[in-house]
Amino acid sequence: MAEARTRRRGGGGAARRAERTAVNFECAKFITRNIPNLEILNEEAMEIIEYNAETVLEEIGVNFVENPAALARWKDAGADVDGERVRIPRGLARELCKTAPSSFTQHARNPERSVEIGGKNMVLAPVYGPPFVRDADGGRRYATIEDFRNFVRLGYMSKWLHHSGGTVCEPTDVPVNKRHLDMLHAHMTLSDKPYMGSVTAPERAQDSVDMSGILFGKDFVQQNTVMTSLININSPMQFDDVMMGALEVFAANNQASIISPFIVGGAMAPVSVAGTLTQVLAEVLAGVAYSQLIRKGAPVIAGTFVSSIDMNSGAPTFGTPEAANVTYGAGQLFRRLGLPYRSAGSFNGSKLPDAQAAYETANSLNTGLLSGVNFMLHSAGWLEGGLVSSFEKFVMDADQLGVLHGIAKGVEVDVNGQAMDAIREVGPGGHYLGCDHTQQNFKSAFWRSELLDYKPYETWEEEGARDTQALATEKVKKMLSDYQEPTLDPGIAEGLKDYIAEKKASMPDAFT
Amino acid sequence: MAEARTRRRGGGGAARRAERTAVNFECAKFITRNIPNLEILNEEAMEIIEYNAETVLEEIGVNFVENPAALARWKDAGADVDGERVRIPRGLARELCKTAPSSFTQHARNPERSVEIGGKNMVLAPVYGPPFVRDADGGRRYATIEDFRNFVRLGYMSKWLHHSGGTVCEPTDVPVNKRHLDMLHAHMTLSDKPYMGSVTAPERAQDSVDMSGILFGKDFVQQNTVMTSLININSPMQFDDVMMGALEVFAANNQASIISPFIVGGAMAPVSVAGTLTQVLAEVLAGVAYSQLIRKGAPVIAGTFVSSIDMNSGAPTFGTPEAANVTYGAGQLFRRLGLPYRSAGSFNGSKLPDAQAAYETANSLNTGLLSGVNFMLHSAGWLEGGLVSSFEKFVMDADQLGVLHGIAKGVEVDVNGQAMDAIREVGPGGHYLGCDHTQQNFKSAFWRSELLDYKPYETWEEEGARDTQALATEKVKKMLSDYQEPTLDPGIAEGLKDYIAEKKASMPDAFT
Repeated sequence: MAEARTRRRGGGGAARRAERTAVNFECAKFITRNIPNLEILNEEAMEIIEYNAETVLEEIGVNFVENPAALARWKDAGADVDGERVRIPRGLARELCKTAPSSFTQHARNPERSVEIGGKNMVLAPVYGPPFVRDADGGRRYATIEDFRNFVRLGYMSKWLHHSGGTVCEPTDVPVNKRHLDMLHAHMTLSDKPYMGSVTAPERAQDSVDMSGILFGKDFVQQNTVMTSLININSPMQFDDVMMGALEVFAANNQASIISPFIVGGAMAPVSVAGTLTQVLAEVLAGVAYSQLIRKGAPVIAGTFVSSIDMNSGAPTFGTPEAANVTYGAGQLFRRLGLPYRSAGSFNGSKLPDAQAAYETANSLNTGLLSGVNFMLHSAGWLEGGLVSSFEKFVMDADQLGVLHGIAKGVEVDVNGQAMDAIREVGPGGHYLGCDHTQQNFKSAFWRSELLDYKPYETWEEEGARDTQALATEKVKKMLSDYQEPTLDPGIAEGLKDYIAEKKASMPDAFT
Repeated sequence: MAEARTRRRGGGGAARRAERTAVNFECAKFITRNIPNLEILNEEAMEIIEYNAETVLEEIGVNFVENPAALARWKDAGADVDGERVRIPRGLARELCKTAPSSFTQHARNPERSVEIGGKNMVLAPVYGPPFVRDADGGRRYATIEDFRNFVRLGYMSKWLHHSGGTVCEPTDVPVNKRHLDMLHAHMTLSDKPYMGSVTAPERAQDSVDMSGILFGKDFVQQNTVMTSLININSPMQFDDVMMGALEVFAANNQASIISPFIVGGAMAPVSVAGTLTQVLAEVLAGVAYSQLIRKGAPVIAGTFVSSIDMNSGAPTFGTPEAANVTYGAGQLFRRLGLPYRSAGSFNGSKLPDAQAAYETANSLNTGLLSGVNFMLHSAGWLEGGLVSSFEKFVMDADQLGVLHGIAKGVEVDVNGQAMDAIREVGPGGHYLGCDHTQQNFKSAFWRSELLDYKPYETWEEEGARDTQALATEKVKKMLSDYQEPTLDPGIAEGLKDYIAEKKASMPDAFT
């Protein structure tokens, strides 16, 4: 931002040319909602679901798989442990959840990019997890570390993304046991936004903590939260040792985890919305409670990933009404628990960044905003049910996130907002284009896409009758060519390099 | 529907083949919301806007242009009339609005297709007004009466559309002064859903009433509402004689009008949301009050059409946050007046049915659902800022309207919805695909698109790697080839033909 601002100073033709070509590194502050949430569950419905969730925990219980330490912790806490099955007496999990903070700060290495997760806030992070990437020129292909770096660069330059994310795609050309190091390195050096840690093994979580120590200072990391990482629950009601191992590392080090059921409705949860909400609440109660057994006060986010199954093809479907209603309902239930909430995203099942992708994505993004989501993972770039990170869709979605910022502002009713002088000045049959109030406000009054086509038909046709994907292809190229790496203390940069080199040298490559 | 049902009876291979090729004439009931509306204005904001709207009416006033009878009516009602300017004392318009019904039935010739407009209901009607049409094969071209008829056919066959609409496109090959006759004839004969009347001249409104008399019986039309027609206000604060002339005919004949400010924010209203809401409320108060001066109890809908201007290009923009917030706010203000509400639609500024079209449309459709819209005109088929009715987008949007139906259902918390037996049956680590509850509910549990692609990647690629537009092109062709005209009493059909022939013979063609 400093660079861009500097360039804008001064006058004359050269300055104007510089301004036209200046790189736009503007970054919006995370969203703070000035509008209410949509509350689709009434009090009775919430009480039924809450009662049933406790019944699930008490009567059916959850499994903590291959994790004797976890079983011992639960036993000590007062749960009934039978093999790997943990049955949690009514009220216990809810009581344990009370020490989790309702809001926390995740620090970025650039303090201006630090985010508040919880309350009325919403933090937007990019797509997570796809093994493939797609762009118009290269088609669909396995993701590489260079693709990964390019997504981090795009995220850094995207005004409406507040967070650099985690596995923006799987760099399949790097050994499985080493790729987390390169991924973390990319987030730490190519962006200055907050990021996520590795969860694929407890030792990789530890690497994330150690590398963050180099970036922020060891003490800082122990006293502050600098990572928010994704801990999926193996729904229904199963907590596996890998994810729990990573959670244990993060919680012990005061780092945040998103504790998130992964639901394809009809497969991992009942086909009904209320049934899904019951299971999701039970799972989150157990998971968050467990995080607090590791360390009271460890920051967590209550998550829900939900899609529905297409009963004809077996495919997961996105942007559907049932997913929307689970998302609205889960927001209410988690707010009653006083926990930050993660859900929604640029979800869609399309193979291409086309109308299907956009309809389904917009449905989910709108739902996310109005359901009170505090952390929206996957908010840009998701394609093909999460198999693909799409370059074009990344910039398309990232642009649309501006709409959410605008809606969240709500309605300003101060004297300027009321605009009575404008209505008086213009009068019946007039127009507002030149009136004082318009002149004063037009620059900030309306959100404007920096991607979509607003041109007259004839101009659009002369310029090649391009569709949104074509505009996005061009924008991706422009952004990547304009990209400038944020500065980093050379000592830190050296420290990170050395850590990675040493780690990589310490183990043979593994590809599974 | 009767035909389709008959074909599905019986067994064996022939019956199954018939079933596969059977025409789907299923039509959903209009939406009744089982979810709350999003209320973004607090009490204070509503009171400020309501107070200011009355100030606009009292102090600035509105123009009734070239309409001495309207001015006389206003004078009699207690307004201050100065030239064409009508200043309405604080409280008068609000008082006059009280005789407008909060909800009314619009009858269709097929009673199963009649709709309730108001309360928690939402009725969906197609695009209105574009002079151009577009499809993949023919590109963008001036609309003809055959295009018009094809849109009526598609609307008739679209499950989630409850209303046949009005000017689904402008049949530019028919003289201006006669085309309303052919348009009405298409709605009356090619569909059995409710429809809109002509508003482009008082005598064309009268033709609409007279033709409806042939279709429903003269007495029935006088005693019931069989048309809902679009009366735009020439914002800011101007009511022209053509639109008011049509309104007068419809109100006098107990037919419904949508009284709707037409706002491109920044041009026809202030650039601020609260300022726009103030003007919209003032305009609707004046327009609805005027309808009640014509006939107390005449059914009306309080409308808002709102887009923003792109301050760079001057183009109207759609799916934007400011439009969303006006739409949410107007819903609240009109509910306080006890009036049915019209807003939102498949709005977008794209030239093609691509991702831009879909993002912007989905933003508006979701806003429409959650802002309490009772009548959503333009809910399918709009393209290029309303210049184009798109065949492909029509079926794409019509499919997405199913999502709104699903969300509106809300969350069922009866025993089946709670699904506790399913959660017990499956248990930790299991799956729900085969469980009893899934078997009982899977057919109706999840909304499923009948257009979008849910296929495995490989299948999709083998079948030509089609995008949404290509799927829609195919669907349009299939629907039009499957179309079957609903039956109509031959005497009525003859009566309509004779009326139109006589009317057409009575005047020379006019093309402006």
